[in-house]
Amino acid sequence: VIEVGIVGGTGYTGAELLRLLVRHPQVALRAITSRGEAGTRVDVMFPSLRGHTDLSFVAPEQAQLQRCDVVFFATPHGVAMQQAPALLAAGVRIVDLAADFRLRDPGEFRRWYRMEHACEDLVAQAVYGLPELGRAALRGARLVANPGCYPTAVLLGFAPLLREGLVDPSMLIANCASGASGSGRRAELRLALAETGESFHAYALDGHRHGAEIDQQLRVIGPQGNAHCLFVPHLLPIVRGIHSTLYARLTPAGQRADLQRAFETFYSGERFVDVMPAGSAPATRSVRASNVARIAVHRPQPDTAVVLVVLDNLVKGAAGQAVQCMNLMFGIDEGSGLEQVAVMP
Amino acid sequence: VIEVGIVGGTGYTGAELLRLLVRHPQVALRAITSRGEAGTRVDVMFPSLRGHTDLSFVAPEQAQLQRCDVVFFATPHGVAMQQAPALLAAGVRIVDLAADFRLRDPGEFRRWYRMEHACEDLVAQAVYGLPELGRAALRGARLVANPGCYPTAVLLGFAPLLREGLVDPSMLIANCASGASGSGRRAELRLALAETGESFHAYALDGHRHGAEIDQQLRVIGPQGNAHCLFVPHLLPIVRGIHSTLYARLTPAGQRADLQRAFETFYSGERFVDVMPAGSAPATRSVRASNVARIAVHRPQPDTAVVLVVLDNLVKGAAGQAVQCMNLMFGIDEGSGLEQVAVMP
Amino acid sequence: VIEVGIVGGTGYTGAELLRLLVRHPQVALRAITSRGEAGTRVDVMFPSLRGHTDLSFVAPEQAQLQRCDVVFFATPHGVAMQQAPALLAAGVRIVDLAADFRLRDPGEFRRWYRMEHACEDLVAQAVYGLPELGRAALRGARLVANPGCYPTAVLLGFAPLLREGLVDPSMLIANCASGASGSGRRAELRLALAETGESFHAYALDGHRHGAEIDQQLRVIGPQGNAHCLFVPHLLPIVRGIHSTLYARLTPAGQRADLQRAFETFYSGERFVDVMPAGSAPATRSVRASNVARIAVHRPQPDTAVVLVVLDNLVKGAAGQAVQCMNLMFGIDEGSGLEQVAVMP
Amino acid sequence: VIEVGIVGGTGYTGAELLRLLVRHPQVALRAITSRGEAGTRVDVMFPSLRGHTDLSFVAPEQAQLQRCDVVFFATPHGVAMQQAPALLAAGVRIVDLAADFRLRDPGEFRRWYRMEHACEDLVAQAVYGLPELGRAALRGARLVANPGCYPTAVLLGFAPLLREGLVDPSMLIANCASGASGSGRRAELRLALAETGESFHAYALDGHRHGAEIDQQLRVIGPQGNAHCLFVPHLLPIVRGIHSTLYARLTPAGQRADLQRAFETFYSGERFVDVMPAGSAPATRSVRASNVARIAVHRPQPDTAVVLVVLDNLVKGAAGQAVQCMNLMFGIDEGSGLEQVAVMP
Repeated sequence: VIEVGIVGGTGYTGAELLRLLVRHPQVALRAITSRGEAGTRVDVMFPSLRGHTDLSFVAPEQAQLQRCDVVFFATPHGVAMQQAPALLAAGVRIVDLAADFRLRDPGEFRRWYRMEHACEDLVAQAVYGLPELGRAALRGARLVANPGCYPTAVLLGFAPLLREGLVDPSMLIANCASGASGSGRRAELRLALAETGESFHAYALDGHRHGAEIDQQLRVIGPQGNAHCLFVPHLLPIVRGIHSTLYARLTPAGQRADLQRAFETFYSGERFVDVMPAGSAPATRSVRASNVARIAVHRPQPDTAVVLVVLDNLVKGAAGQAVQCMNLMFGIDEGSGLEQVAVMP
Repeated sequence: VIEVGIVGGTGYTGAELLRLLVRHPQVALRAITSRGEAGTRVDVMFPSLRGHTDLSFVAPEQAQLQRCDVVFFATPHGVAMQQAPALLAAGVRIVDLAADFRLRDPGEFRRWYRMEHACEDLVAQAVYGLPELGRAALRGARLVANPGCYPTAVLLGFAPLLREGLVDPSMLIANCASGASGSGRRAELRLALAETGESFHAYALDGHRHGAEIDQQLRVIGPQGNAHCLFVPHLLPIVRGIHSTLYARLTPAGQRADLQRAFETFYSGERFVDVMPAGSAPATRSVRASNVARIAVHRPQPDTAVVLVVLDNLVKGAAGQAVQCMNLMFGIDEGSGLEQVAVMP
Repeated sequence: VIEVGIVGGTGYTGAELLRLLVRHPQVALRAITSRGEAGTRVDVMFPSLRGHTDLSFVAPEQAQLQRCDVVFFATPHGVAMQQAPALLAAGVRIVDLAADFRLRDPGEFRRWYRMEHACEDLVAQAVYGLPELGRAALRGARLVANPGCYPTAVLLGFAPLLREGLVDPSMLIANCASGASGSGRRAELRLALAETGESFHAYALDGHRHGAEIDQQLRVIGPQGNAHCLFVPHLLPIVRGIHSTLYARLTPAGQRADLQRAFETFYSGERFVDVMPAGSAPATRSVRASNVARIAVHRPQPDTAVVLVVLDNLVKGAAGQAVQCMNLMFGIDEGSGLEQVAVMP
Repeated sequence: VIEVGIVGGTGYTGAELLRLLVRHPQVALRAITSRGEAGTRVDVMFPSLRGHTDLSFVAPEQAQLQRCDVVFFATPHGVAMQQAPALLAAGVRIVDLAADFRLRDPGEFRRWYRMEHACEDLVAQAVYGLPELGRAALRGARLVANPGCYPTAVLLGFAPLLREGLVDPSMLIANCASGASGSGRRAELRLALAETGESFHAYALDGHRHGAEIDQQLRVIGPQGNAHCLFVPHLLPIVRGIHSTLYARLTPAGQRADLQRAFETFYSGERFVDVMPAGSAPATRSVRASNVARIAVHRPQPDTAVVLVVLDNLVKGAAGQAVQCMNLMFGIDEGSGLEQVAVMP
């Protein structure tokens, strides 16, 4: 059994980790920390968990995280990098659901997260936790940077095109939309139902943290180093779900290719990436509460591919992917604890 | 032309007052105050008003409110009572959209709003601003306590039954539901879309401020003094709209009465209370953005009346009713500036 | 392993049965019928099931249902009663998710469902499938009438009060609200998002089928035979969830009783009925996609109890409860296949 | 006073025409036709109109439309073209809110609407009713083809770039999303709240009627004839609102241009197109129920412009624009009857 600790369990990714881990057959939840809620039962904050756990939040000092096999950081950015060195030194593995170990370039980290990195040396050791695009490195990994929700959707959608050289890597567009839970569990006016309900708008036109992450990883995927994606996020008046509409210019090779087959081949055997039949337009609800990303590829005009990707931002876009990474890190069945069928309608 | 000032225009009732008043043919908006937003153009905060006003928020000291004919307080509770004495002394009339002048009993005010009243003597002079249930006193009034959104719905629904002695005044139930804008424009976690979207729950089972207001006014309406209503509010995952499902035990007289006719007679000639045909179940959307309350009365069993009331919490439940009161105070057409057709779908 | 057939799997309750049964450890799905969709893969109609089943819909004649251990009817009313006699004669057990076997009185069935009953003799043998209020009869039952979604919520809420004689059984009110999936998967204008989104309204003020079912079962629960509940349903602009706000007049015994303790005692040991801590107001999202009903009891005034009940209309209100009944019928763990944690947010 | 008839008033665009026209100071509504609803009061179907009109639907034969000054067709495609010749011959002007007169090329009409055109000769006379891009031709026009909702948003957004040669006309992308009312008032499963609520998806990847309309009109705008736009629509789980995110490759001239100023200059003096301040991301709610389109232009990378456009699909995208056209046709104030402030929140 894998002994698990969670740091910062009062947000949505923390709650979702709990939803998944309390039912994971090889996991024993040992501790969940929250300074502000120390002593509060987890199911008082999240009544959905009543009957599934007796845990209470504990202060970080009390948590004895060094006794865990793995610790998930479901914290704001900047926390994991403070605690990672000691935990790793104690032999504890780490999955960081925040961004501390995603950006390789310290300058980029500083630019987008407006803080100095506390352990730049560890960044190089961190494995980017997108199993379908880099499974080998995750096997046995000690420090995993769990991807952002948008990057997961965008990277899964572009990867088959990019790796095969089917598209121009410098002219990629990702028009994305996320449900409100993607912004976290926060008391902010802009997230109020009366502000965001029955409405829709774009945001972050001047640049979004996930844009840097997307470009960095696109360059890992593509044979050339110059990939760049114009990323425009939008806020959907729903709770869960990410939808990405990706546009790419096909190269001559791409124009001759069977795109449907390229995707099916690329993701052949993957449990959590579902290439839909030709002509499909997957809805976010088709993956609600499940760890699956569904993808459809179209060629509406000869020189352009449009890829549609949906996933649940809290599962495949966060906690589910983190559990998938943990399974790989510990060499157990990659899908353990992640078999939930999507909740539809 | 009526010169108007608004104190505290950064909330939803302030924004709604602006929506109505910028198109009111007999009104000139002179000032809108906000300490925090002084200097900001109103249409920067509320882009929906672009093209309709050039006003900017001003600090209260700069607003010269004493030159206005009437000042609306769209503030948190406790502000109007601080400024009312001086303004009234300067000959300015007041419509308070908060609760400072609603509760006659200072003990009740203290109990529910947890503050001492700053001018108890003025409370007695204030007129409760529900025109359909007390129009005469509003004509020429100098200080109006604009009703709460829930009380408006509940009182309009029970009044025809209560005033005619058709129901037992001591056994009234008001099962109400409000859209999220009823809680104001606030950065609170409980109002976040990810918390309230795709969900529904009751609240304030241990008592709600509007319950005291409802009981007080029910006693004004009814021939007996003992009216009491059990009030249970719920939070709807929509932006605007209040729905009240009212239950009352019919007296023997009530059991013999033609309830449909009783309602039609009671509200005969009223522009802003619409008694629906027998058998109707009005939807909140049928009054969206309009100043109308729609009411349907049913007798599902011989001894029980069920009254359904819908209104827009920001219009007939707040800003629209305040304008209706202002129109009466100044002796102009009661419906001036309030002719908007409901927005449906 | 229990061999299962589903008749009429193209609606929401059918889809939800599939979601639960494909992961049920003791179940093998043998056939799912649909005349209109015969030959279509189930996961073409419901992409959420991709990767979880290879079944296709078959015409009823092809389904060989008589070889199953149990058949679920997720059909419109009137279908199960046509096929039940032959299946039962062949030794197949039945769980009817429609209303064919709910109403004991053939006259009531005729009145509310506007059809003659095809096998009145079987009605008497049918067991009403609400385990928490009648588990013994379900053990080994051959024909189960799965309760309606509203009745499940209302009966679970009133039962502890009624069975102990704490409330006046003749003056019960159930103010209920359901998400749109409760009306089924249908092409009807009134269910369109543009009609029901951002809105709220009551319906069926002149009587609802579930009202007859509620009254019948209340009389089974209560010591006296005269129970009656005024039932007023409302349509919520959400997909899933039922919320019931129940009102009851306390008897003198009820006024002296500790209601919280009465509920906790009554549901002690129940896995799928969760009595919330005193003062709670459960939200529908706290049970989304799970088989749990959460209940809170309040006494807002000395003579009145208010009970709040939430459940997922497609799980505890339909397919989940049907699986729970099946588990009891076959003597396996009652919670098998029903351990899903609620999806929140 | 302009005497107005409406053909086919039972859909959303018909209802919206009624909302606007009952308050239009220079309009007298003479007749509204519906074969299916003949004899029904309009406000029985649309309770939001109670108190604003006493009209009933009449059968087309009874409507005496030839006595009107103008007739609006708010019908399915294919109706206006049947009746237009006779009405025009009788001196009645026509605004068609359907697509009968939008596509100049009969082959394109046949391809997209799968019917033969009944009066191809009239197509050439029809004026495309987008005032901001072709006001002169609308003055005194006798037959107006009111634009589609998506084309209005897309054309307004691309026009300033295209007319000034700032972008490559052959590489335009329009990523659009519409509320459910854009699909009309129809009993279709795909429009049910339980299908579309809490979800988001693309559609019509294989081509949408509005794509042909967009390309045709882009070629009218641009100096070159080769404009083409890849148009991908999405369905939003809201009632009203269109959001367009437009992508264009800047030409060398475009890369040097001040895009913000280009838009401000282009729409200078326009009442119903609002160029937002630099850096804005307009929300659909900022135009709800108003005739305004709000536009923001961004340059997230040197060679790419992103234009954001929001409008209410039923107002500026349909009925409001039709009224704007009517005002121009009759030489009255272009904004008459269209001064509504957007409803926000």
